[in-house]
Amino acid sequence: MESNSNVLPKPLRGIIPPMVTPLLERDTLDVAGLEQLIEHILAGGVHGLFILGTTGEAPSLSFRLRCELTERVCEQVKGRVPVLVGITDTCFVESVKIACKARDAGAEAVVLAPPYYFPAGQGELLEYLEHLTAELPLPLFLYNMPSYTKLVFEPQTVQAAAGITGIVGMKDSSGNMLYFHQLQSLLKEHPGFSLLMGQEELLAEAVLAGAHGGVCGGANLAPRLYVDLYNAACRRELSAVETLQRKVMQISTSIYSVGKYESSYLKGLKCALSCMGICGDFLAEPFHRFRRAERNMIRRHLKELGLMENK
Amino acid sequence: MESNSNVLPKPLRGIIPPMVTPLLERDTLDVAGLEQLIEHILAGGVHGLFILGTTGEAPSLSFRLRCELTERVCEQVKGRVPVLVGITDTCFVESVKIACKARDAGAEAVVLAPPYYFPAGQGELLEYLEHLTAELPLPLFLYNMPSYTKLVFEPQTVQAAAGITGIVGMKDSSGNMLYFHQLQSLLKEHPGFSLLMGQEELLAEAVLAGAHGGVCGGANLAPRLYVDLYNAACRRELSAVETLQRKVMQISTSIYSVGKYESSYLKGLKCALSCMGICGDFLAEPFHRFRRAERNMIRRHLKELGLMENK
Amino acid sequence: MESNSNVLPKPLRGIIPPMVTPLLERDTLDVAGLEQLIEHILAGGVHGLFILGTTGEAPSLSFRLRCELTERVCEQVKGRVPVLVGITDTCFVESVKIACKARDAGAEAVVLAPPYYFPAGQGELLEYLEHLTAELPLPLFLYNMPSYTKLVFEPQTVQAAAGITGIVGMKDSSGNMLYFHQLQSLLKEHPGFSLLMGQEELLAEAVLAGAHGGVCGGANLAPRLYVDLYNAACRRELSAVETLQRKVMQISTSIYSVGKYESSYLKGLKCALSCMGICGDFLAEPFHRFRRAERNMIRRHLKELGLMENK
Amino acid sequence: MESNSNVLPKPLRGIIPPMVTPLLERDTLDVAGLEQLIEHILAGGVHGLFILGTTGEAPSLSFRLRCELTERVCEQVKGRVPVLVGITDTCFVESVKIACKARDAGAEAVVLAPPYYFPAGQGELLEYLEHLTAELPLPLFLYNMPSYTKLVFEPQTVQAAAGITGIVGMKDSSGNMLYFHQLQSLLKEHPGFSLLMGQEELLAEAVLAGAHGGVCGGANLAPRLYVDLYNAACRRELSAVETLQRKVMQISTSIYSVGKYESSYLKGLKCALSCMGICGDFLAEPFHRFRRAERNMIRRHLKELGLMENK
Repeated sequence: MESNSNVLPKPLRGIIPPMVTPLLERDTLDVAGLEQLIEHILAGGVHGLFILGTTGEAPSLSFRLRCELTERVCEQVKGRVPVLVGITDTCFVESVKIACKARDAGAEAVVLAPPYYFPAGQGELLEYLEHLTAELPLPLFLYNMPSYTKLVFEPQTVQAAAGITGIVGMKDSSGNMLYFHQLQSLLKEHPGFSLLMGQEELLAEAVLAGAHGGVCGGANLAPRLYVDLYNAACRRELSAVETLQRKVMQISTSIYSVGKYESSYLKGLKCALSCMGICGDFLAEPFHRFRRAERNMIRRHLKELGLMENK
Repeated sequence: MESNSNVLPKPLRGIIPPMVTPLLERDTLDVAGLEQLIEHILAGGVHGLFILGTTGEAPSLSFRLRCELTERVCEQVKGRVPVLVGITDTCFVESVKIACKARDAGAEAVVLAPPYYFPAGQGELLEYLEHLTAELPLPLFLYNMPSYTKLVFEPQTVQAAAGITGIVGMKDSSGNMLYFHQLQSLLKEHPGFSLLMGQEELLAEAVLAGAHGGVCGGANLAPRLYVDLYNAACRRELSAVETLQRKVMQISTSIYSVGKYESSYLKGLKCALSCMGICGDFLAEPFHRFRRAERNMIRRHLKELGLMENK
Repeated sequence: MESNSNVLPKPLRGIIPPMVTPLLERDTLDVAGLEQLIEHILAGGVHGLFILGTTGEAPSLSFRLRCELTERVCEQVKGRVPVLVGITDTCFVESVKIACKARDAGAEAVVLAPPYYFPAGQGELLEYLEHLTAELPLPLFLYNMPSYTKLVFEPQTVQAAAGITGIVGMKDSSGNMLYFHQLQSLLKEHPGFSLLMGQEELLAEAVLAGAHGGVCGGANLAPRLYVDLYNAACRRELSAVETLQRKVMQISTSIYSVGKYESSYLKGLKCALSCMGICGDFLAEPFHRFRRAERNMIRRHLKELGLMENK
Repeated sequence: MESNSNVLPKPLRGIIPPMVTPLLERDTLDVAGLEQLIEHILAGGVHGLFILGTTGEAPSLSFRLRCELTERVCEQVKGRVPVLVGITDTCFVESVKIACKARDAGAEAVVLAPPYYFPAGQGELLEYLEHLTAELPLPLFLYNMPSYTKLVFEPQTVQAAAGITGIVGMKDSSGNMLYFHQLQSLLKEHPGFSLLMGQEELLAEAVLAGAHGGVCGGANLAPRLYVDLYNAACRRELSAVETLQRKVMQISTSIYSVGKYESSYLKGLKCALSCMGICGDFLAEPFHRFRRAERNMIRRHLKELGLMENK
């Protein structure tokens, strides 16, 4: 492990937003938007920053752009919080390459979903993790995202992976709380392994049940809300949890639910950030930004949520 | 369109094997094996060569290795048959990049499955094709592979795509003959559009029903068998079709059916080529080669098939 | 086996239409329509009649109505062709009960899809077939319909089932030709076992590849068309096959494709029969008949197909 | 509404176990076991009893046996708690018939999953509910069980259904907490509508988030445990919740997890009840009981759980 990893708490706790990638064009970062977005998120008191995940559209970005983003983010964050960099790739060699870039840029950890084209078995998946971890210069978080990768990290696989040196946690975006509780039962022997909830609607109950934190997309918009909810759940202040949870559900059923797209979450989030003046709403192919009618709905929802001035 | 495309018949017809990628290590081509494999395949009288498809493990290979492979293949084929290069990538920019490398190397066409991480809608998929085709230096074949990409090219999308200049055909690996017949009905107005069957077990009936050819993985092992079956089906010699089809089914239910892996096809194919002395059986992560017991079964099947001397 | 089964050819061959169930109300047969429909179908030269399948809406019909239908059909068919009766039920005891009613009414065989609520394993499915067959008074056809039952008869299960006395054939409605060819390879040792294609769009290629016939819903409308296609395929008259197959595809892409319903096939079929004056278009819950706009499209399609006078 | 419904609280709250159906043979109730099981469950302080659900193997039971069971249960419960009777059937008419039997026997409500053979659309599903409710003699609970029925009650459909007179609640067994939270948001205007959690592992967090209770299969074994957990969650005693939840997870990961069957839950539950001497472990087709090795594991798990004397 490199020196970077020294600053990574074990287990990592708190709100680690999966950052949106501000773009001007297909292969061009929105550099000014990126700076504003980072400062907006950090001002909310978050505990880390995760770039190049699903919310960051990583699979749609070129290798070059992913390197540029990693460098710019690390440079601007300047160690204020740990930076986690997504290295998911269908190619083993490319995952290692981007992990090395992340280390060079000063990131603290990397995050990996299973290779998502070929349907590996669980035995192969574990072997793949062993081989990969041996080549990685930074601690690794697993990323369970079966709806996009088709491949789940089965509970026994996670249990085995938690015993591999260098694997330090997991983000679960399955939305399956039964699976999450099974993980918690199986990981009791690994107190340093960080279990993070990837579905923000389930953050509260996950933390109440012992999760270490959450990777909440909505924290791009309203970082303080998720930090407050996390803190309330840690302190077991149930009536505060209830009030804040209602707000989280309001974001989920409004901003993420415009149109009948499977991609409504991503489009709504980028559109909202654009309406709020933080960064542009350009999406990488194969997606495109919301058009006027949908943008107007997002704008109305933001006002109702108090996230935008009512002028 | 570049000059390369002049040699590409419209519609492209015949057997275009999806070539296995011979490897020595994770990121090292088996150069000698590659040469032998190419000559073995071409000696069977095939009508084209498709590299960097699913059978070629493209998603598991580094960008560098994909470029090297493309160059070496084009150099050795030397225009004897058209070379088609897979450019499927979750990132638009990377697809264009590998297509340019293919053109530079002298390939005749490129092949593209939908971006396979984010769930695009059909409208977005069509727009993506329009944008991409505008940037491509070579004619494009679509590649329908829903079990791996999660996203199907719906029949109406293919019909619309057939009207885009530069899109010249489709390989359908869905295994769904009802879908295939629907495509045939919808593509009647596009006689230059090549419709190729991607499941070798369905080659005969597809060609009898009017398909232009097939992309048959088994043609790595026994290229002549698939060429003969294609010719028999074109000539409507039903009793020859029946005899050859029985052989194709025998390969399918033996070589591709060892073990209970979803990846048995790929592992069986590479193992068989290794047993036949043509190239090595190293597989890119996340897969690994067959072990001794499975290899012995493959060897026995090859002898029963007459593809290996019985010593 | 009862005396009825003497008239059942082994293997059963030809076109055995899955008859629509004409209804006046939720629990009332359209008796006059039923008579007309039976005569319309038999006039086409079909080789059997299958009632209480998916096309017959069996799972939506009461036990009482299923008994009444069975009696009326057998009485009217009067042995002109074999009658096959669907006995699929999630309850073993109820399947046996309806089979006994079928025998009493004079039917020649029964047809069974797997119990479709609980997810049985293949071992359990085979055991279930052994237990059930021991209680059945008539020969049994298996019915593979995985999209509705969630449970597939795996090829090895069918092979084992073909060895159970009393199981005499299978209707495959999976639409998966690769599966169908695998069955054909595995059933070579059982020449008396009838393999019937349940997807009419695949009838021609199935029969060319050795299938014994088809269970074609479109034969409710145009029985002669499917009989002619079956005969042409048996005689290997490929150009007649091609012409007739084009007509079959035209029915499929018009009559079965109105609206974006998963149930378009069933609604289109009943609506067309009603437009042709053969029987009513009432559907059992949870479906409802097409409304005026959709009915007008069906009417137009029927005219284009020459199945309805152009007045 | 009949007089029975007077005793049904609005909203219904608490633990309503989905009762196992004790059987001696395929079509024979284990009458003595049934009496013992009812008394065992009621002794745990439960708030209702739900018969003929998935845990009750209803789809595998004959109409006759379902009627007999309903009568015997109502007779023995004698109004001590409300009895809810499953009426799910693919046939509308049969659902009404069993509901009438339930009313005659003295049950307080009926429970219905969507018809599970044909894939209805949401509009058709809602219309079906309207038609059905008009014919039902008892209040209706919806039952969401998409893994078995293939058809989900979408949140908007539930919201609309909550406005239909006679529909008084819902049991959600999807295991999808995001869906559950969406329902809660949408049902705010319907305070009398009872929202019950069908996955016992999620009971605690559902009740903490405002659910009215749970339908917990484990309450066949250990009714007091689930009642205690429900009460602790209602009183927001988080440390008691934590302790009891750990026990619930222990049942889930032991008793329900023997073997690799999809049916392990049902087999484990019946086997455990048999080991505890409460009722027999006969399962209706297509399932069979655990054999000796699996039974020994269940026995060991029961001892570890303190649910069986350690002799």
